[in-house]
Amino acid sequence: MMSDFSARLETVARTVEDMMADILGDNCVAGEMVRPPQLMAAMRHGALNGGKRLRPFLLIETACLFGADGPGVVRSACALELVHCYSLVHDDLPAMDDDDLRRGKPTVHKAFDEATAILAGDSLLTLAFSVMADPRVHDDGGIRARLVGALAAAAGPGGMAGGQILDLAAEVASKPLDEAAIWTLQAMKTGALIRFACEAGAIIGGAADGDKVLLSGFGAKLGLLFQITDDLLDATSDAATLGKAVGKDAGRNKATLVSLLGVEGAEALRDREEIAARQLLAPFGERAQVLEAALHFACARKY
Amino acid sequence: MMSDFSARLETVARTVEDMMADILGDNCVAGEMVRPPQLMAAMRHGALNGGKRLRPFLLIETACLFGADGPGVVRSACALELVHCYSLVHDDLPAMDDDDLRRGKPTVHKAFDEATAILAGDSLLTLAFSVMADPRVHDDGGIRARLVGALAAAAGPGGMAGGQILDLAAEVASKPLDEAAIWTLQAMKTGALIRFACEAGAIIGGAADGDKVLLSGFGAKLGLLFQITDDLLDATSDAATLGKAVGKDAGRNKATLVSLLGVEGAEALRDREEIAARQLLAPFGERAQVLEAALHFACARKY
Repeated sequence: MMSDFSARLETVARTVEDMMADILGDNCVAGEMVRPPQLMAAMRHGALNGGKRLRPFLLIETACLFGADGPGVVRSACALELVHCYSLVHDDLPAMDDDDLRRGKPTVHKAFDEATAILAGDSLLTLAFSVMADPRVHDDGGIRARLVGALAAAAGPGGMAGGQILDLAAEVASKPLDEAAIWTLQAMKTGALIRFACEAGAIIGGAADGDKVLLSGFGAKLGLLFQITDDLLDATSDAATLGKAVGKDAGRNKATLVSLLGVEGAEALRDREEIAARQLLAPFGERAQVLEAALHFACARKY
Repeated sequence: MMSDFSARLETVARTVEDMMADILGDNCVAGEMVRPPQLMAAMRHGALNGGKRLRPFLLIETACLFGADGPGVVRSACALELVHCYSLVHDDLPAMDDDDLRRGKPTVHKAFDEATAILAGDSLLTLAFSVMADPRVHDDGGIRARLVGALAAAAGPGGMAGGQILDLAAEVASKPLDEAAIWTLQAMKTGALIRFACEAGAIIGGAADGDKVLLSGFGAKLGLLFQITDDLLDATSDAATLGKAVGKDAGRNKATLVSLLGVEGAEALRDREEIAARQLLAPFGERAQVLEAALHFACARKY
């Protein structure tokens, strides 16, 4: 099942990457004047980087549960991925996490400069909403407006951006966060967009409200599980296996459930949450096979 | 007429300011988890600053041409103003224009810190789209999606953000820009949102396509005229009259039509463009009185 899953993930990633490359071209769309080549190059540097495209995958597979597929669904998934990419460009800035490398390549502010990186992030974020509002996403403007509103709520001050500021505050706080505060932080910083991916798939698929609630809940748990597994990997892997510097969080006041609960405590939590997440998929039966595989993928990465 | 105009501008500004204060409150809206108080305080610092609210005014007055008014129109105007405010927060950053003061108050990165200012700008931008997609803006989701798309096009890489990078590039370029390049730069950097204000008023007012084209064209010219007048003010005022440091552009390779054409040349251009802008309003007759006053306001500021 996992090799099928990996193949499907890769196929979707290629489809998404192709459409993103098209969206990030130098040619203007309606209402634009000129796309400055230097800015577009920086945006492409930050966005066309061979990521797994996990969030688009979840959106597309959730929409597929309801029989919705095709280029409109992929376009909405690209809008979501543009928001994720903007957040990476800005998080890497010197005033934020100050990272020089991402996926082995110079970060945008290193490859270009800081002003260009700020504007490239701003532009990726802005373009995301242009893409989501595009009539090619869905015939029904009401659906498009709902997707825009839900994406903005997930990405904004009460979601991802708010989670980032909580994370920065935690690093310099005088005492570690408690468990409830870490849950909130992670649900916002990394969970919100993953939750939105599943919610958006349900919206664009025309799901009933009850199904939308189940899938949003599944997305929220999935986001948490990805984060716990990442933190477990960071705490326990050796560098050779993981292919990156490990234990880099050890010296910082990082707010993670692993640092709070220990490895065994975090593993127990992960196992409980995985069961709860699987139960949310039960009503969809066999149709939810791919989302179940994504859940397995989130939890079972080796460390 | 101008005192009527000023009174109307102030009334609209208060209405907009009140709704923006509500939008920027600490309470979450649907889809949000927690609004971190520190982030919200930084957003309010950057957005609730007693600005003239010119862009919201133009949107509201243009909608009024078509009999559209009420809180939905004001809400859409707030969305636009949030985008303008985000751009000011990011433009002031050390890596960009590096300004310590705005309207006599510390800029957001001075009052808070740089990471907070980046995230506050990001959040104002994101929230803008949440506000524009809100069902309270208009019953018709298709209209809301159109507004979102047009706002994103005006603000993104082919609009305002692209104009900012052209401006930064011009400052360090080996030779001054030519007239066509300056027009493009200014149409993007400052013109695009003013143009959008008029376009959005027409969209939300349900204007016919022909009227929308006229009003977008008027907005584009109005944006240029505000910029020319600002540049004339900067080039010719004395500090006592203007209340800020003047000639601050003199030492930098600033791309303005005044520096290229000289004061008289820029005045002649302004006069020609003012006539052309007024002609675009002619078909609306007396109904366009307030927009005509705005045009007068854009051109006639003393220097």
